[in-house]
Amino acid sequence: MNTPPLALTMGDPAGIGAEITAKAWNALRATGPAFIALADPDALAPYAPIQIITHPSEARFTQAIPVIPTPLAHPATPGKPTPENAAATIASIERAVRLTQTNQTAAIVTNPIAKSVLQEAGFPHPGHTEFLAHLTGASGQEIMMLASPMLRVVPVTIHVSLRKALDHLTTQAIIQAARTTHRALITDFGIPTPRLAIAGLNPHAGESGRMGTEEQTLIQPAINALRAEEIYVTGPHPPDTLFTETARKTYDAAICMYHDQALIPLKTLDMNGGVNVTLGLPIIRTSPDHGTAFDIAGRNLADPASLIAALRLAAEIAARRG
Amino acid sequence: MNTPPLALTMGDPAGIGAEITAKAWNALRATGPAFIALADPDALAPYAPIQIITHPSEARFTQAIPVIPTPLAHPATPGKPTPENAAATIASIERAVRLTQTNQTAAIVTNPIAKSVLQEAGFPHPGHTEFLAHLTGASGQEIMMLASPMLRVVPVTIHVSLRKALDHLTTQAIIQAARTTHRALITDFGIPTPRLAIAGLNPHAGESGRMGTEEQTLIQPAINALRAEEIYVTGPHPPDTLFTETARKTYDAAICMYHDQALIPLKTLDMNGGVNVTLGLPIIRTSPDHGTAFDIAGRNLADPASLIAALRLAAEIAARRG
Repeated sequence: MNTPPLALTMGDPAGIGAEITAKAWNALRATGPAFIALADPDALAPYAPIQIITHPSEARFTQAIPVIPTPLAHPATPGKPTPENAAATIASIERAVRLTQTNQTAAIVTNPIAKSVLQEAGFPHPGHTEFLAHLTGASGQEIMMLASPMLRVVPVTIHVSLRKALDHLTTQAIIQAARTTHRALITDFGIPTPRLAIAGLNPHAGESGRMGTEEQTLIQPAINALRAEEIYVTGPHPPDTLFTETARKTYDAAICMYHDQALIPLKTLDMNGGVNVTLGLPIIRTSPDHGTAFDIAGRNLADPASLIAALRLAAEIAARRG
Repeated sequence: MNTPPLALTMGDPAGIGAEITAKAWNALRATGPAFIALADPDALAPYAPIQIITHPSEARFTQAIPVIPTPLAHPATPGKPTPENAAATIASIERAVRLTQTNQTAAIVTNPIAKSVLQEAGFPHPGHTEFLAHLTGASGQEIMMLASPMLRVVPVTIHVSLRKALDHLTTQAIIQAARTTHRALITDFGIPTPRLAIAGLNPHAGESGRMGTEEQTLIQPAINALRAEEIYVTGPHPPDTLFTETARKTYDAAICMYHDQALIPLKTLDMNGGVNVTLGLPIIRTSPDHGTAFDIAGRNLADPASLIAALRLAAEIAARRG
């Protein structure tokens, strides 16, 4: 049996999605992994040869980008997003999910969207991840991992202010993030006995309570509960030394307490290669770790490295799940 | 006129201070910069030849470590700190400050102390930096910079819990940190027109208020005030992309809102080479960017790289101030 292709969404049509889709196709056409695009053919055609298909099995990836047409309401202007095209952006995601749920595509890879543009059009979800959880009936179970060849990080709290992150952090949220990560490292990353490092929250991990107490009141209880489930965890670690080259060798993923504790080391080490992987969904989903880049859209300046890494990782995970 | 040597304190005598002092002397004896140690001769003698002196001008650095005796109450046991030796640790710092204030030494470089050990002995200061500010009449003006060849960072809030850091962050503190850093980059680092990057506090620098408002209420007003003083600043920057290789080329120092925002990227990029520089004091002071390392003390495992970098940087700053 042939492996089904990946399903790649269009993202915001005023962003760099079409450009990096074409660049990724050029980079991968000979080697794979193959993907199909859920996009407006007219938006992709200026960048690469396209093959219009109605079903993923018709795809001839080596010759052209296979496209299942998902038409825009209005031709897109690079750098000028409009809520009028929000419906097409959303339809592209919904279709990719359906194709993946029915095993016609192996995984979903999403091009960047602009939350504010979709929200102007009435989209009620904070972002891709929550929308995908909603579509797959997994709301509340979604966990974000950022993965690069040098580091995997999982922030327990994500897109909220730092003050709210402190308010939202709970023992239960840490346990859930670690548990989901543990399972994913086994099934999706091929690591039979995953090692998780749990970061502290405060400088020096609180220095025995002298600089904060959450390590004692929230994090250590989570560590104890995870150990009772036979999950291998260490910590709470002083955050500033957790991402050194030496420290990174001691774990397979770091569970981080807030967005920037995870994202600063990841992006500092690897500006372009990071991939966003949504764990905890019934389908496989990855995405590049950057935004729509409206500022450089339409100028042939966009770097496809993160999208290519996202496509490769999605295919690897699909192969492992078999 | 000969350049006076640097004054190197003993640090906690149960830590790695004596060992890295000897290793630094070995690395620097031929090339300089020269230093004298304020230490117990018996504690240093097992590691390297010593020259007991009473005045820095007697130092013959190429042949031995010049030592102005600062006796311990009890011989130190590696890894077993005792408050009984706190007085000697403190006396070493006081003496180094006096010698530097009177230009007999060019700068003070401090070996690591253990705050908790000194505090048991009644030491009322949170750490080295505050004690040095107190001794030099500069309390409240001290600013911590961490400098490595790849990155300079200045945290506005330091050794407090993350929650307190949010409470302590003020426009005035950001302005003071940036102003002091601006001056130091000119006088101490030889950068005639310094470029400062001001970090945001929240994920994505708050995304126009959707994930936090401190960028608008605290940070932007500081930026406006600094610009009115003709200080070149950019920001508030999304913290996660501020430390990429590309971003680092755009500034000479990053002003960070909390400890780990500054220390995570610094230590991730350069685990060993970071130097702690205290800005805002009338004397020059640097220190290695690590602790007493009681766990490896006395086992010849300590890496002197950060101390050597601290000695070199202190000498460079002294040469620039002339």
